[in-house]
Amino acid sequence: MQSIDVRLSDLAEKFGCELIGENICVAGVASLSSAAHSDLVFLNNEKFIDQLIHSKAKAVIAKSNEKLPLDRSYLICRDPVLLFALIADYFNPRPLSQASIHPTAVIASDAVIAPDVEVGPHVTIETGVILSSGVQIKAGCFIGANSVIGANSILMPRVVVYSDSMVGERCVIHSGCVIGSDGFGNAWARDHWVRIPQLGRAIIENDVEIGANTTIDRGALDDTVIGSGARLDNLIQIAHNVKIGSNTAIAACTGIAGSAEIGANCLIGGGALIAGHLKIADKVTILAGSAVPSSLSEAGVYASGVPVVPHGTWLKNMVHFRKLDELAKKVKHIEKMQVAQQTTQGESSDTN
Amino acid sequence: MQSIDVRLSDLAEKFGCELIGENICVAGVASLSSAAHSDLVFLNNEKFIDQLIHSKAKAVIAKSNEKLPLDRSYLICRDPVLLFALIADYFNPRPLSQASIHPTAVIASDAVIAPDVEVGPHVTIETGVILSSGVQIKAGCFIGANSVIGANSILMPRVVVYSDSMVGERCVIHSGCVIGSDGFGNAWARDHWVRIPQLGRAIIENDVEIGANTTIDRGALDDTVIGSGARLDNLIQIAHNVKIGSNTAIAACTGIAGSAEIGANCLIGGGALIAGHLKIADKVTILAGSAVPSSLSEAGVYASGVPVVPHGTWLKNMVHFRKLDELAKKVKHIEKMQVAQQTTQGESSDTN
Amino acid sequence: MQSIDVRLSDLAEKFGCELIGENICVAGVASLSSAAHSDLVFLNNEKFIDQLIHSKAKAVIAKSNEKLPLDRSYLICRDPVLLFALIADYFNPRPLSQASIHPTAVIASDAVIAPDVEVGPHVTIETGVILSSGVQIKAGCFIGANSVIGANSILMPRVVVYSDSMVGERCVIHSGCVIGSDGFGNAWARDHWVRIPQLGRAIIENDVEIGANTTIDRGALDDTVIGSGARLDNLIQIAHNVKIGSNTAIAACTGIAGSAEIGANCLIGGGALIAGHLKIADKVTILAGSAVPSSLSEAGVYASGVPVVPHGTWLKNMVHFRKLDELAKKVKHIEKMQVAQQTTQGESSDTN
Repeated sequence: MQSIDVRLSDLAEKFGCELIGENICVAGVASLSSAAHSDLVFLNNEKFIDQLIHSKAKAVIAKSNEKLPLDRSYLICRDPVLLFALIADYFNPRPLSQASIHPTAVIASDAVIAPDVEVGPHVTIETGVILSSGVQIKAGCFIGANSVIGANSILMPRVVVYSDSMVGERCVIHSGCVIGSDGFGNAWARDHWVRIPQLGRAIIENDVEIGANTTIDRGALDDTVIGSGARLDNLIQIAHNVKIGSNTAIAACTGIAGSAEIGANCLIGGGALIAGHLKIADKVTILAGSAVPSSLSEAGVYASGVPVVPHGTWLKNMVHFRKLDELAKKVKHIEKMQVAQQTTQGESSDTN
Repeated sequence: MQSIDVRLSDLAEKFGCELIGENICVAGVASLSSAAHSDLVFLNNEKFIDQLIHSKAKAVIAKSNEKLPLDRSYLICRDPVLLFALIADYFNPRPLSQASIHPTAVIASDAVIAPDVEVGPHVTIETGVILSSGVQIKAGCFIGANSVIGANSILMPRVVVYSDSMVGERCVIHSGCVIGSDGFGNAWARDHWVRIPQLGRAIIENDVEIGANTTIDRGALDDTVIGSGARLDNLIQIAHNVKIGSNTAIAACTGIAGSAEIGANCLIGGGALIAGHLKIADKVTILAGSAVPSSLSEAGVYASGVPVVPHGTWLKNMVHFRKLDELAKKVKHIEKMQVAQQTTQGESSDTN
Repeated sequence: MQSIDVRLSDLAEKFGCELIGENICVAGVASLSSAAHSDLVFLNNEKFIDQLIHSKAKAVIAKSNEKLPLDRSYLICRDPVLLFALIADYFNPRPLSQASIHPTAVIASDAVIAPDVEVGPHVTIETGVILSSGVQIKAGCFIGANSVIGANSILMPRVVVYSDSMVGERCVIHSGCVIGSDGFGNAWARDHWVRIPQLGRAIIENDVEIGANTTIDRGALDDTVIGSGARLDNLIQIAHNVKIGSNTAIAACTGIAGSAEIGANCLIGGGALIAGHLKIADKVTILAGSAVPSSLSEAGVYASGVPVVPHGTWLKNMVHFRKLDELAKKVKHIEKMQVAQQTTQGESSDTN
């Protein structure tokens, strides 16, 4: 990462924001605490003003410069996080393909590989694979027969793509991901399981990013599809025939069972469990640790995670939780008795 | 997958089912929606009849042809999913070993490798390993010293098998699996952890299938054992000394802690957590997202997953959940008071 | 593992414990059930005395020999598990570096590699990497540009370390781990996600052990840090900017969200979910399956996992759980009525 010096006025023009203060140069982005004089930082929340005061950074992205130190320069915008992301990417773009095939890579003679593709050491590329322009296949990846990787996609080291998979353009797939492995399909035959061959494909549309060690199974008969622009974190399980809508973001450790259809623009928190054969509407937010056993047809925020309490409290609560039905029945009975008493008492009072 | 044309009467004879309708040829299997004219489909549920009417498929596996379109041919059987699995496998058998050792594989000179074994590119096979007849070790796998892979087992790309592990016959292990890694054994020494060497083995019996990125630790002193015919999905954690009974099926994202013994023919839903040092009986079903803290000695269905509700409802519920014990005590107190009142009221009424 | 015969008196001297009984030789350690005559076993709990009686082992580590068979020799100590760990490690030390670079490894010409380093087959080591003395990089690992691996650390087969990561001394990282992959950083731009470049590092301090297929993201701007002596089990997700304190042990399948700070000497059970941007104090224990949505400032034991019940019970309980707020309101109403009744009744009684 060699540093390039850029004037704030140039950034303001390029990214459509307002410069307030001295038109200094910046050489990169940083956090408030780690910034050097030449770094650009962002302030998204007033509670960090104190950190800003102690930061070495001279240039700050913020919503406004009200109440902020006068000795800094500001790039003012509606969404500091977004502007910071765009400028951070400007200073630190993803590296381009080195347009070279490492001699240790094992590549089927009939694979179609664009001239500017990068293939790293110890990669295996099987028959019929297509690697489009600008693709980067890093060390140790495996691309199974007849799979297609779209233009400018990057597979980080040790990604496995099973046969017949489709990865779109500008995707990034992190290390250890397995794309297109067999779905969990078994039929019970009196005393043993018979596998149901998994004949569908795994299709990753354009602009998808997938975290480390996430697994995406191929479809059973039809396809598993990750919609364009989706973001998947690490260690996520996507079962066969799942459809994930465009721009849906899913945090780590989430499991989505077979044939679930998740809408577009959903936010799914970490460690969520989503059952199979259900539909989740667009713009649904599911908080971390929640379990979704059936369809959610309305946009909105849903939750079921259970927060920790001290162990002693938990033990006492659990006694009653395990027999919540009994407690509810007791309350119902008490209500009935109370009504009866009121009546009796009313009568009793009447007789006075 | 070149297509082979097969008469329905031949399938009926081979798989012991009844043909109703014209004895046409089929070339493969498909889903109702994606089927071509030459595909065989299955119907397991009357709610899909409409899809069948619109399907191009001419041949259908079903329990009966009652109420079903007259212009199709039917293979009638008791269990359409099972018959479909068997016929799908007939059309799409697992590929056989290519009986070739890739020149990039690094193989210890004393490894015992049957003549018809397939070893892919960039594989490492250490000293003392035995690969039995028909074994397929796909690209990038690692087989540690003295491990044994039984006849006709398939290790998909980038599986790691640590030393001294045993994999049975006809197993399939998907990409990214780690078999025989160290269990989580640590002893506390006042101010730091001391590792407890993990000296047992990981033993995978015959006909086991294991999904992508699942981890199975070796035993601490004795062995970890996955029983014959078991089915494990993706991203499952099996800790040291766990025993999984025959034909037990475990869905993705489940974690099983050390020394747990799971019976045979169990069904364990996704994202389950099973504590260590417990026993689960045969034929136990544990629904997705459940936590099992102690032994289950009776066959049956168990659950503890908590389903989502709208966030507002959840917030209100959680207030009370955190002090469920208080609520229960309140109810108990009310009950007592009610009894007391009844008595008083009774007396009061008596005095009238 | 060739066996070495050691006198119990030598072990007693070396590890500071007391020998009671005959000063025999032992050749290794084992479990009670699998021990041969020459094995040393341990007894941590009186409930296993019966197993000891039937064990072939002649030498036993125990807290005292009271009530124990007279025909065995004992090493008496305060903490049998710890002594067993130390002696097991003495008999089964981690193998040392073989001080050899496999010819199939692809190593950048400017990587700095100590003379006694072991690099296995199919390893890739990029520019600027430093491998310190005694390091073992097993088959198929990838070490990204400018990463540093400290002295005597071991990376098991197929570990991926992204660029600019730091691994301390005497660490062990198991197969399939991904260290330093991009954190899950995305900014929403009206109709699509913009990635937030992940510019921090992943830092693993000294004496850390990390289980198979665990993922540790690099920091967004600052660093992700796993403190010295920490123990991480398999399939754990550590998000960007997380700090894990020294000697904290985390069981499998746990997810820790971005910027969480976990104290030192914590114990975190399996399948826990810890939210981002919170602080957990030192010496906090979180039981398996718990969710931590906010900071825990006091040492102690916390829980929220929900244990299984038979499915029928669960269904009935869930009806009420989903409307726990209603139940609580009902109880409040009943209480009020009861007080009102008491008053009325009191008055009513008074009028008698």
